[in-house]
Amino acid sequence: LKKLVLRLGSKKTQVWVGTGVLRQAGKLLRKVSSSQGPMKGWIIADARLKKESKTLKDSLEKEGWKIHLLYLKVSEDLKSSNGANRIYEELLRFQADRRSVLFALGGGVIGDLVGFVAGTYLRGIPWVGVPTTLLAQVDSSIGGKTGINHSKGKNLIGVFHQPAAVLCDLDVLRSLPQRDMISGLGEIIKYGLIFDSTLFSKLEKIYSPFHFSDPDLENLIARCLKWKCQTVEKDERDETGAREVLNFGHTLGHAIEAETQYKYYRHGEAVILGMRVAARLSYLRGYLPENTQERIDRFLRGLPVGSIPSQLKNKNLLERLKWDKKAVDGQVRFVLLRAIGSTVLDRQIQAKEISSALDWIRSRRMS
Amino acid sequence: LKKLVLRLGSKKTQVWVGTGVLRQAGKLLRKVSSSQGPMKGWIIADARLKKESKTLKDSLEKEGWKIHLLYLKVSEDLKSSNGANRIYEELLRFQADRRSVLFALGGGVIGDLVGFVAGTYLRGIPWVGVPTTLLAQVDSSIGGKTGINHSKGKNLIGVFHQPAAVLCDLDVLRSLPQRDMISGLGEIIKYGLIFDSTLFSKLEKIYSPFHFSDPDLENLIARCLKWKCQTVEKDERDETGAREVLNFGHTLGHAIEAETQYKYYRHGEAVILGMRVAARLSYLRGYLPENTQERIDRFLRGLPVGSIPSQLKNKNLLERLKWDKKAVDGQVRFVLLRAIGSTVLDRQIQAKEISSALDWIRSRRMS
Repeated sequence: LKKLVLRLGSKKTQVWVGTGVLRQAGKLLRKVSSSQGPMKGWIIADARLKKESKTLKDSLEKEGWKIHLLYLKVSEDLKSSNGANRIYEELLRFQADRRSVLFALGGGVIGDLVGFVAGTYLRGIPWVGVPTTLLAQVDSSIGGKTGINHSKGKNLIGVFHQPAAVLCDLDVLRSLPQRDMISGLGEIIKYGLIFDSTLFSKLEKIYSPFHFSDPDLENLIARCLKWKCQTVEKDERDETGAREVLNFGHTLGHAIEAETQYKYYRHGEAVILGMRVAARLSYLRGYLPENTQERIDRFLRGLPVGSIPSQLKNKNLLERLKWDKKAVDGQVRFVLLRAIGSTVLDRQIQAKEISSALDWIRSRRMS
Repeated sequence: LKKLVLRLGSKKTQVWVGTGVLRQAGKLLRKVSSSQGPMKGWIIADARLKKESKTLKDSLEKEGWKIHLLYLKVSEDLKSSNGANRIYEELLRFQADRRSVLFALGGGVIGDLVGFVAGTYLRGIPWVGVPTTLLAQVDSSIGGKTGINHSKGKNLIGVFHQPAAVLCDLDVLRSLPQRDMISGLGEIIKYGLIFDSTLFSKLEKIYSPFHFSDPDLENLIARCLKWKCQTVEKDERDETGAREVLNFGHTLGHAIEAETQYKYYRHGEAVILGMRVAARLSYLRGYLPENTQERIDRFLRGLPVGSIPSQLKNKNLLERLKWDKKAVDGQVRFVLLRAIGSTVLDRQIQAKEISSALDWIRSRRMS
């Protein structure tokens, strides 16, 4: 069991990673729930996770919590004002007050939605993230970015609201489909590429999607979370630019997801494609040696993600980039690599360079 | 023209109070808009304030801002997820980005709604409050409490999001109905009672609802805002309790508003009644000498608000108190007075004491 602490001003987020975390949740959270009287909690859970919900509920009740449980059928449509209203109604029905705690048990959709509700109910109540996908454990559970979708785009409505704690239980990952593991691996690789060449080398050696051992996985997740915490501590609200490096591979990744209506790619899969493009751009713009770019691409194209489909036209992807949430005055900013583990921000990239990088990726054969 | 600065961590809110503030807005905000390139602004205005909107728009455009203008028909129903969506749509239509600034031109409903939208659009963009009622200028414009209503209660959904600047123009107050001036005066009196006996004495002397001179009004507003800034600086997010004193008169005031479906009383009018009850409770609980309580009541009952109507039953008001947003485990906390200018927090008040205070107020004749 590994523990990390994210410190932001006077607030902290306690993070646990390991096996059996759900069973121990009540004890682990003793220090989080410092107030007097019995704690009231609402577990908002992906309806497919009945067993995990019950494990968490039992563990908390053993420590004296009073727990309500709400199951939600998860789809991207749930991440909307309608989905938020479902939860507000439930909280109001049982008179949740400012000391009540929400638990978000599920993947990214549940985390983003429940975090947003916690951030806006009575102007903010505490919440605990219980991410159940590798992607959510490794990345989206930390950092306080919460939000819902608007019909015109994803995550357009949201707030920064840090969780009081995050519980990453490796046991819940065992039943994940391979594609979900690959999607999470995409974000793990990202941390290697932008911060940590040792991590990247290790991934090149140990990667085998069916055979991450528990200790390997615990180490990988904890290592990524350590990097994420350090970055968020420097730039909680995405203002100073420190946090922008986390966007590596995401600029084009988001465009690919949007252009395929979020139906074809898992988030991490699209990020893997986005990182291939970003690495190629890093070479084209003169930051990264060609052999390093080739090394990165060899690893990434070896993953079972496929290439960029020919139906996805360059001009449509370029049009999507203008709509990027982080664009300022229509100018997109790309995070690129100087080396494995070192980044540079480039605001001057031309459309034709992006097209050239896309074409190069399309031309590579899968190994 | 008076200027105050509210400092919260690395952020500050610049506040201007005086005549002709709207005409000078462009110049005053020069320092607020520090980024390069032309600034984009959205004025979200009460549809009744066409002239004021145009004055503000002209003043900003003269300084190079690109301004969109959206008029909204104001009612309490506007302060809802539907109202928020109206504004989100408008922002998305013209691609507002993270540097775009929202201007909230109107009373409390506009300020709460636009502040909430600014706090949740792209996880937070800057906003400027342009309060046009005395109540909003003196109190609700500062402090960052934003929110919308839920069918089950007011302000249940919201965030803390400090405005970048607040522009209090005395000129816009000239056309206000007397009841709106009295409502604002209610909050001014509150600042006297909880912080500032000199202010209270001054109000006893100069009060005449039709004859606040501009210099008097400028001084009164600036003095209240100074107190508000000091309090919010100690307790931005309503956590340490420092901010709780601002709730003086509001606990019962909110119950009175709710019990009359927010249709009969202006907010400040209900607060005036709530302060009378709180002052009486302060005496009944042994904190405040009877002659001081009588002095307070004499001034408050002299205002054209009326008494608590007999249709408002004690037991219904008491039931409402349990639903108070700040109640914890059903226990309501009352801010009471030890003296004019000094408060005490009491969590042990019995229902029968509240009933007794209500009955006492009902028994006083208007002077």
